[in-house]
Amino acid sequence: MPPTHISRRDRLREILRERGLDAALVTCLVNIRYLTGFTGSNAALLVYADGPQSDPGLFCTDGRYDTQAAEELPELPRLIERASDLALAARAAANGRLAVGYESHQVTVDGFAALRMAAESVRFDTLRWAVEELRLTKDEAEIEALRHACAIADTALAGLIEADGLRTGRTEQEVGRDLDNRMLDLGAHAVSFETIVAAGPNSAIPHHRPANRVLVTGDFVTLDFGAECDGYHSDMTRTLVLGEPAGWQREIYNLVAAAQRAGRQALAVGADVVAVDRAARAVIEQAGYGAAFSHGLGHGVGLEIHEAPALSPRGAGTLAESSPVTVEPGVYLAGRGGVRIEDTLVVRAGGPELLTLTSKELIVR
Amino acid sequence: MPPTHISRRDRLREILRERGLDAALVTCLVNIRYLTGFTGSNAALLVYADGPQSDPGLFCTDGRYDTQAAEELPELPRLIERASDLALAARAAANGRLAVGYESHQVTVDGFAALRMAAESVRFDTLRWAVEELRLTKDEAEIEALRHACAIADTALAGLIEADGLRTGRTEQEVGRDLDNRMLDLGAHAVSFETIVAAGPNSAIPHHRPANRVLVTGDFVTLDFGAECDGYHSDMTRTLVLGEPAGWQREIYNLVAAAQRAGRQALAVGADVVAVDRAARAVIEQAGYGAAFSHGLGHGVGLEIHEAPALSPRGAGTLAESSPVTVEPGVYLAGRGGVRIEDTLVVRAGGPELLTLTSKELIVR
Repeated sequence: MPPTHISRRDRLREILRERGLDAALVTCLVNIRYLTGFTGSNAALLVYADGPQSDPGLFCTDGRYDTQAAEELPELPRLIERASDLALAARAAANGRLAVGYESHQVTVDGFAALRMAAESVRFDTLRWAVEELRLTKDEAEIEALRHACAIADTALAGLIEADGLRTGRTEQEVGRDLDNRMLDLGAHAVSFETIVAAGPNSAIPHHRPANRVLVTGDFVTLDFGAECDGYHSDMTRTLVLGEPAGWQREIYNLVAAAQRAGRQALAVGADVVAVDRAARAVIEQAGYGAAFSHGLGHGVGLEIHEAPALSPRGAGTLAESSPVTVEPGVYLAGRGGVRIEDTLVVRAGGPELLTLTSKELIVR
Repeated sequence: MPPTHISRRDRLREILRERGLDAALVTCLVNIRYLTGFTGSNAALLVYADGPQSDPGLFCTDGRYDTQAAEELPELPRLIERASDLALAARAAANGRLAVGYESHQVTVDGFAALRMAAESVRFDTLRWAVEELRLTKDEAEIEALRHACAIADTALAGLIEADGLRTGRTEQEVGRDLDNRMLDLGAHAVSFETIVAAGPNSAIPHHRPANRVLVTGDFVTLDFGAECDGYHSDMTRTLVLGEPAGWQREIYNLVAAAQRAGRQALAVGADVVAVDRAARAVIEQAGYGAAFSHGLGHGVGLEIHEAPALSPRGAGTLAESSPVTVEPGVYLAGRGGVRIEDTLVVRAGGPELLTLTSKELIVR
């Protein structure tokens, strides 16, 4: 969708002009994908503040991606150089663009020293998170890609449960691979991240890597997984019980479900991200489990699995319209087990739109 | 294997003392894994130059990984803070360690500004690639992990061919998923990288992402793939032909095979990396295809799929004993097809040890 990419670059140009910058040197690959559609692993992009359509900037990648770049971004002039960032910095200097914004949150200390050597006449200034801020509010095509990715995850989990894939005797790894294959069969380009399957006491480890533990009756099983479609990532967590839940299992499940509901209900355009986290966390704290909820409530999701905004006690800012976020409180009892329930939702003026549609009733297998 | 990790940290301590540094603040996750065994996604490590066994340094991660860190590195004192790098910088300052080496090739410009604010009394100096240099020469346990990963890739490819998995009518994606599942079935923890399956004209794109192209008779099919075991990555490429090879296919296949042989034969302890690249590249250039070999000859491999040394015209340095590297020349003819042949080998005093054992005869299906 080149028109989309051109209009995104135009929005970046407006920011450059507001800040008195002549050009932006974009080096975050995900930001380059957002601004151009390029999906390779080495690239840099120079966007000129005053670029007319005939001078839209310059794209640089290495020889491996020449053909691919010609297909993905035919409208952008292309330079082939391995050190793509340095090549474009030098080009900016040669073209008299002297105030250049660069991504100081991504460029390393060594990389910045090299940039300055490659373009001695350039005055570099931080671009800050300008492109990430453009990415906060998704357009409807992006949300549709996320909706599709979430639907794949929902369908994959339903299929897994339907096929009795969550039976005792299987290992966490077997369950994870089954789920991954179902998502790929359904058209996911990849999985969003390494699928978490955490059974029994392992469910008390928020980021447990699936291992050889065999599922047994009485286990909590936490599944945290997602599908990637056209670069957009879904993210969902469900915890279920194998067999009849014990009292403590029902208690913490219902607690996390209540906290998750409070978090979802707090999602509103303009809501403070710390207040959204607080809405869910307060439920868990009031039940005396505050220390067992050891991470933030959620995060933005899109071209990256974790992106702005952070819904956490350490977050800052307010929720934007059409911004997809996760809501995922958890309670973890070391040595016993834990529960996390997570949805992906879009912040909307009329209330949040739920993208992950799998039931949040306590599923008993 | 904590004793291994302790001795690795001891070697880093020697470097710190040689350079007059009081401590190293290690923030590259892969370097942290090498020095501690920790496999999570947020950590920082402080190693004191003068640390006795009772004061070996300090490890920091966030609450998600508390339990995991306790299991993986019981011998290291642990701090739980989300901003792990800042917490350890502050601790170094508080403990009077004033000359601290940091990884300037990994720390961002913004990250470095935050480090300096968190530890104003500290004089930061670049640690350069000190840990990566320790990682160049692998110990026998590391090489055994690589050997195991390579054997899984060999066995998976043999199984794929045996099962007629490379038949016409299948898509590149189907072949890639079949190969991936075979590696996982054989015990790979993950695939080393996104498997490349490039059929027909797509084989002329060195880093082609498998898509919906259906394999047809006459296609070159390039498979570039690997298995990850215990953090170590295998890397192998084979190109085969579906049906009777055309004359041009035999020609470039034999050419790349000859270049690959020359590259392997040039692997020797102390060999200049540029000369190794040259040995293979000269074969391709002499046949008039120099411009069609658009990337470096190979790279080191270990805890990362691409690590030092770079065997390339832009490389620097010489080969170390017990250093695993890939040798992977290619010839790519846009619109027609291409060939790449890649092995993983270990540089040894008595000549290179081949880890990827699949035949390099032109395989015809």
